[in-house]
Amino acid sequence: MANDEVILLDFWPSMFGMRLRIALAEKEVKYEYKEEDLRNKSPLLLQMNPIHKKIPVLIHNGKPVCESNIAVEYIDEVWKDKAPLLPSDPYDRAQARFWADYIDKKLYDSARKIWGTKEEEQEAGKKDFIECLKVLEGELGDKPYFGGDNFGFVDIALIGFYSWFYAYETYGNFSTEAECPKFVAWAKRCMQRDSVAKSLPDQHKVLEFIKVLRKKYGVE
Amino acid sequence: MANDEVILLDFWPSMFGMRLRIALAEKEVKYEYKEEDLRNKSPLLLQMNPIHKKIPVLIHNGKPVCESNIAVEYIDEVWKDKAPLLPSDPYDRAQARFWADYIDKKLYDSARKIWGTKEEEQEAGKKDFIECLKVLEGELGDKPYFGGDNFGFVDIALIGFYSWFYAYETYGNFSTEAECPKFVAWAKRCMQRDSVAKSLPDQHKVLEFIKVLRKKYGVE
Repeated sequence: MANDEVILLDFWPSMFGMRLRIALAEKEVKYEYKEEDLRNKSPLLLQMNPIHKKIPVLIHNGKPVCESNIAVEYIDEVWKDKAPLLPSDPYDRAQARFWADYIDKKLYDSARKIWGTKEEEQEAGKKDFIECLKVLEGELGDKPYFGGDNFGFVDIALIGFYSWFYAYETYGNFSTEAECPKFVAWAKRCMQRDSVAKSLPDQHKVLEFIKVLRKKYGVE
Repeated sequence: MANDEVILLDFWPSMFGMRLRIALAEKEVKYEYKEEDLRNKSPLLLQMNPIHKKIPVLIHNGKPVCESNIAVEYIDEVWKDKAPLLPSDPYDRAQARFWADYIDKKLYDSARKIWGTKEEEQEAGKKDFIECLKVLEGELGDKPYFGGDNFGFVDIALIGFYSWFYAYETYGNFSTEAECPKFVAWAKRCMQRDSVAKSLPDQHKVLEFIKVLRKKYGVE
């Protein structure tokens, strides 16, 4: 794999992009990071992801892999000799895929309502969001990571959101630590890993980014 | 695997349930089929899928696997010696997952609008639906199946919808054969397989089922 050409099309605040950054860091894969301007998408992005036209896209030796959880699983299968991300047992693999899918289906939309809407809609989003976190906390239980003792697929699917929590808490006026202490302990544990710490943006920078979005969408 | 206990919680018109029926038939796995009444869900369903409370659920030796594409992949990994459903190459696997995900994200919602809404919304649904089919036709190209020469994961993700096409055409007033002849040729090819033919309900029975739903939702 020494001569592999790996390119990541990404946008710095994307929690979906962060998944690939973390997976590539865990596998110690060298790659070229290309920042996209989402208001003016590059011809390369449109060519590599003509269906969804979204980041992140992993380009491996000229061939694209789209959709972040699918790309993380691809990275795990290609660079399989280092830091396994999915469990080896088929049942545990199915469970890991289930929880990554749950995060995609439930967490993003409710989180978006916290900073992107007002009044009842915002309150409903906050309620759903905290409910989701509690479900995830229940699944985590007393394990250090979602898959058990080792950092893996579900942790990667979820931890990127943590860089947005300061903004969620600011606009939603709540404390994640008070609501979901085990979740916060898990997030801090993940943040101690180099692969995570260097892949997540500063939470204050994310807040500034969301301030701009809120103005753009007329929320404030 | 001879002493495995396999149970499928399902509901006959569900294209998601059909995926598991087909996968289990391809693998020649014997199982107990349990029909659910979705207006009065069984305690077993609520216990086995407490998160989404949805069918289909595969219960393998007492342990549940939820979300249909995840369950099909689980079936492929557990009963791996017969009829491989996912390709063995990591890139081809990622592509198969991408298209199964595309079907889930794009096809169901537009299809639902064709029979479940009226006027502009219905027209928009029909337009999106035919556009999706054309995208899928483009991906199929001149191959007999989505993965190439062998029936597999993407075919299984998609073919269940075909049993609803008579209803889509009836309420949407269009001809799939005129719009997407290659798609229809592919569907007929799939229907020649025992695993598919015996897993899909009769299209007239689906139409009768949708008639009842339309009355219930006040569409007619």
